[in-house]
Amino acid sequence: MPTYTAPTRDTRFIVNEMLDLASYSNLPGFEMATPDITDAVINEGGRFCSEILFPLNQSGDQQGCTRHEDGTVTTPEGFKQAFDQFREAGWGTLAQPEEFGGQGMPHVLGFAFEEFISSANQAFGMYPGLTNGAISALIAKGSQEQKEKYLPKMVSNEWTGTMNLTEPHCGTDLGLIRTKAEPQADGSYAITGTKIFISAGEHDMADNIIHLVLAKTPGAPDSTKGISLFVVPKFLVNDDGSLGERNGVVCGSIEHKMGIHGNATCLLNYDEAKGWLVGEENKGLAAMFIMMNAARLGVGIQGLSQAEVAYQNGVAYALDRRQGRALTGPAEPDAKADPIFVHPDVRRMLMDAKAFTEGMRALTLWGALLVDLTHKAATEEDRAEADAMIGLLTPVIKGYGTDKGYEIATNMQQVYGGHGYIEEWGMSQYVRDARIAQIYEGTNGIQAMDLCGRKLAQSGGAAIQAFFKMAGEDIATAREIEGLADMAEQLEKAVGQQQAATMWFMQNAMQNPNDLGAGAHHYMHIMGIVTLGLMWLRMAKVATNRLGDAGDDKPFYEQKLATARYYMDRYLPDAGALRRKIESGSASMMALGEEAFATAA
Amino acid sequence: MPTYTAPTRDTRFIVNEMLDLASYSNLPGFEMATPDITDAVINEGGRFCSEILFPLNQSGDQQGCTRHEDGTVTTPEGFKQAFDQFREAGWGTLAQPEEFGGQGMPHVLGFAFEEFISSANQAFGMYPGLTNGAISALIAKGSQEQKEKYLPKMVSNEWTGTMNLTEPHCGTDLGLIRTKAEPQADGSYAITGTKIFISAGEHDMADNIIHLVLAKTPGAPDSTKGISLFVVPKFLVNDDGSLGERNGVVCGSIEHKMGIHGNATCLLNYDEAKGWLVGEENKGLAAMFIMMNAARLGVGIQGLSQAEVAYQNGVAYALDRRQGRALTGPAEPDAKADPIFVHPDVRRMLMDAKAFTEGMRALTLWGALLVDLTHKAATEEDRAEADAMIGLLTPVIKGYGTDKGYEIATNMQQVYGGHGYIEEWGMSQYVRDARIAQIYEGTNGIQAMDLCGRKLAQSGGAAIQAFFKMAGEDIATAREIEGLADMAEQLEKAVGQQQAATMWFMQNAMQNPNDLGAGAHHYMHIMGIVTLGLMWLRMAKVATNRLGDAGDDKPFYEQKLATARYYMDRYLPDAGALRRKIESGSASMMALGEEAFATAA
Repeated sequence: MPTYTAPTRDTRFIVNEMLDLASYSNLPGFEMATPDITDAVINEGGRFCSEILFPLNQSGDQQGCTRHEDGTVTTPEGFKQAFDQFREAGWGTLAQPEEFGGQGMPHVLGFAFEEFISSANQAFGMYPGLTNGAISALIAKGSQEQKEKYLPKMVSNEWTGTMNLTEPHCGTDLGLIRTKAEPQADGSYAITGTKIFISAGEHDMADNIIHLVLAKTPGAPDSTKGISLFVVPKFLVNDDGSLGERNGVVCGSIEHKMGIHGNATCLLNYDEAKGWLVGEENKGLAAMFIMMNAARLGVGIQGLSQAEVAYQNGVAYALDRRQGRALTGPAEPDAKADPIFVHPDVRRMLMDAKAFTEGMRALTLWGALLVDLTHKAATEEDRAEADAMIGLLTPVIKGYGTDKGYEIATNMQQVYGGHGYIEEWGMSQYVRDARIAQIYEGTNGIQAMDLCGRKLAQSGGAAIQAFFKMAGEDIATAREIEGLADMAEQLEKAVGQQQAATMWFMQNAMQNPNDLGAGAHHYMHIMGIVTLGLMWLRMAKVATNRLGDAGDDKPFYEQKLATARYYMDRYLPDAGALRRKIESGSASMMALGEEAFATAA
Repeated sequence: MPTYTAPTRDTRFIVNEMLDLASYSNLPGFEMATPDITDAVINEGGRFCSEILFPLNQSGDQQGCTRHEDGTVTTPEGFKQAFDQFREAGWGTLAQPEEFGGQGMPHVLGFAFEEFISSANQAFGMYPGLTNGAISALIAKGSQEQKEKYLPKMVSNEWTGTMNLTEPHCGTDLGLIRTKAEPQADGSYAITGTKIFISAGEHDMADNIIHLVLAKTPGAPDSTKGISLFVVPKFLVNDDGSLGERNGVVCGSIEHKMGIHGNATCLLNYDEAKGWLVGEENKGLAAMFIMMNAARLGVGIQGLSQAEVAYQNGVAYALDRRQGRALTGPAEPDAKADPIFVHPDVRRMLMDAKAFTEGMRALTLWGALLVDLTHKAATEEDRAEADAMIGLLTPVIKGYGTDKGYEIATNMQQVYGGHGYIEEWGMSQYVRDARIAQIYEGTNGIQAMDLCGRKLAQSGGAAIQAFFKMAGEDIATAREIEGLADMAEQLEKAVGQQQAATMWFMQNAMQNPNDLGAGAHHYMHIMGIVTLGLMWLRMAKVATNRLGDAGDDKPFYEQKLATARYYMDRYLPDAGALRRKIESGSASMMALGEEAFATAA
């Protein structure tokens, strides 16, 4: 049977030691996040996910969701009860504003919990996850009345939320949407159209579902500039907060997917459903991007999450399964064979996983801190700086994090040999669940273009220059620390590759934008590799500082240093190859027309 | 609906122009393979697979196989009828010896057909595929009586065959097997034990199933030196060739797998089943390796096959789906959006797929020619040379071919965005089916060790030196051809990286074998990259020669040259990064003990 234990020790290391969350106690919300509180939240959150949600993960995959003829949807056995427990424990309220019933804790804790919930049960975690996205859009763009009407019950998870963007003929290119919003005399709109791929679009886990829907008002421009955002509750909400009549939105079918079977992915038919404009008319895309940016970070975390749970099971199998002998001679001569853990190629896959998950955990939690600082840093300048940095990192966290997450989950399945391919062992689910994260909330190709086409160029390249400056400072201080000079140099070379690639874009992309498009994916990967390298250098610094007085914890810091070294040896070399690919430009990539891709019999 | 057309034009290009099969007409079996015959076989074989087998692929995935209480197994609807057609058309007899009813054609044609069958329906193709493996073991090691009894009906596909190696506690390490073979007074053996993961182990498509089974005789050495091979028919065969009583081998269950649902993966219980020794006692492993080497090449072809069918569907979607605009301005201004084919990141994935599938097709067909030459070349020296080369290439074809095949299938799914994740569209199946090829017939980690631990060192490195010499000659001649000098130089650099990595192994692996194990996977990938580069250089040469007088075929040769250029630009750079990883050795990889991999809460 698969196992999962939330890696809370590592989370506490990052939060308390690497990020030093306590040092931000002067900022609003952070004052509550004392080490004893954060430790308790992390530990209890981890326990809840490991003990309550993980046991429903495999059965949820096997059972999936069922749509009934009346359009209602039943989630897998146990999901509803677990969501009741989740709601009662208040896990959804962690980082939500106090004004709407939240606990107002830093996002750092919210993100830590998101990792655990997605590792334990990604399909389950998407129900509150989508709700969080909808909450952030309503907070940013909703009217006071809308906030008061919807937010308290969404924050408490009595109701859940959804994001409705995609239609059968359009996903990435939202300018093409056809769903219509006709203004009504009472100030509401009648929403009509078909939305697809709506995660958590219909289910039996909450009393109401608050849909946020993109649609076009009559005469709106026929482009992304003509999209408006509407709030469309499944059940209308009376002025006293009680539920009124059923709205005209019905689940027409649920998709049969490769994974995340426990989450209902719905086709929703809107037939003159009653909706209300959120924010300004024709400014829906900006509102949607508020949800989207939060969601993209959440999806990046899913990449980490599936890698983590797959890794834990990979380790368990590698220590249990015995085949062959160590190349250096029998490790356990009295047994008939050694555990496969002794084989370098198995260790390679485990170390790749360990180096990725721990580095990615550091990156997502640092990203969460930046999100907090975007809102809460003391000065406008600090807030703007944090905003630019997390804007730059978001496509990297989403795109690189999920590409690698899928790769690591696949490798951990590989550790199992033939048993990895059998559903009973659970490894296939991690691969299948991880796969979606590369696709939704903007495919990773879109992330790469967001990074290279928008974020690199913003404000004259200020964000990427700030990133290089910060990396340079980290490298310079590490170089002075005994034992870290080699690693600092390795990272410096990789940063140099990224700088060269950046320069190449600057020199070429203006004349030929395809040169940018042709290298965007590779650039996103270089930046992911470099950024995780930076995280490892920071962790190595902390570990070096702590080694002297760590007592019983000494092995923890020693393994951090060893893993940092592995990361520099085995991840960074790809930066040079990726740069060379970028510098080959778009000529050979775009040389062939469509007839060259036809299969000739 | 997914589509598939066997890429016969490309196959004919490789067989007739790159390999110039006609030039081998002096060798036995090749004299029949005149261009008109080979073209007809390729075209008809392609048509059979595209028209008869592909339509059963998705339904076979959805239905899977069903085991009944009596141990019988029903294959998906249509499989039995299609296998009847397959048998009647004689597709299984192509490259089998005439003496047992085969057509005695070169393996080049057999491999070409194997690609088509696996693209069209991998789960189906495994039934005759496993039969071919069993046939080759019986041809090599069976007694005259066994050959006469079993081979004609196996070659004709009236009966199918299986390979029984794995047991619940052992797969890679066959020295651990527990299945017993007790000698009986009549010269037969009573076989008792449990075998798992037996592909095509039980089904309703043929009258009899001939199991080849590894087991231990009483008192045999407790290691791989104590394994013997037995032939165990599902129904005993009377002396007149008619079927006798049901043997004591029963399907206890079938596995619920990630993919290849149309193939029954069985647990087989042997309860004093009647079996007969094949070859010498305690020499079963060598006999098994005859099957295994054939099977590994077949599995490498599966990597190509899934990439190919996924690629064709990726192209279809990229040309059909419209989202956004080309970076260089609207490609089709009158439409509301351009086909996603215009986006460089989509083109990157398509070009990666095209460069891989066409290069890999060339490699597998060249590999097939080497297999033929192993048996049929004119001199002992030529035969030995071919044997050494295909021995070196086998783990590369299997390991690199299936790693990349899975990656390409995943990328083609990515082209579909959200629709790629929905089973109805068919892309998920290609990914799930491709996944097994990295695992079975020796995991890719085992392939890497076979390459680096055995094949590199064999005969003092003769095979790898021959490979480098051959590559050097190809590069030298290409350098003199107008338009190819750049590509020759790019490939030369990559070969240099492989040579440096080879040298590093020689200097380090003797003192520390873990240095070899730590780099084996990366070396297998360098060699795959270089070998496909060599194939592309050869194809580019042929294309350059033909361009002048190609007439209407000119675009075909032009796109070959453009794709060759893309391959050199975008695949070769990884060789340098992989070399650097190898040279980082095993120190950081093996530094941590098992306690460092425990999850601390």
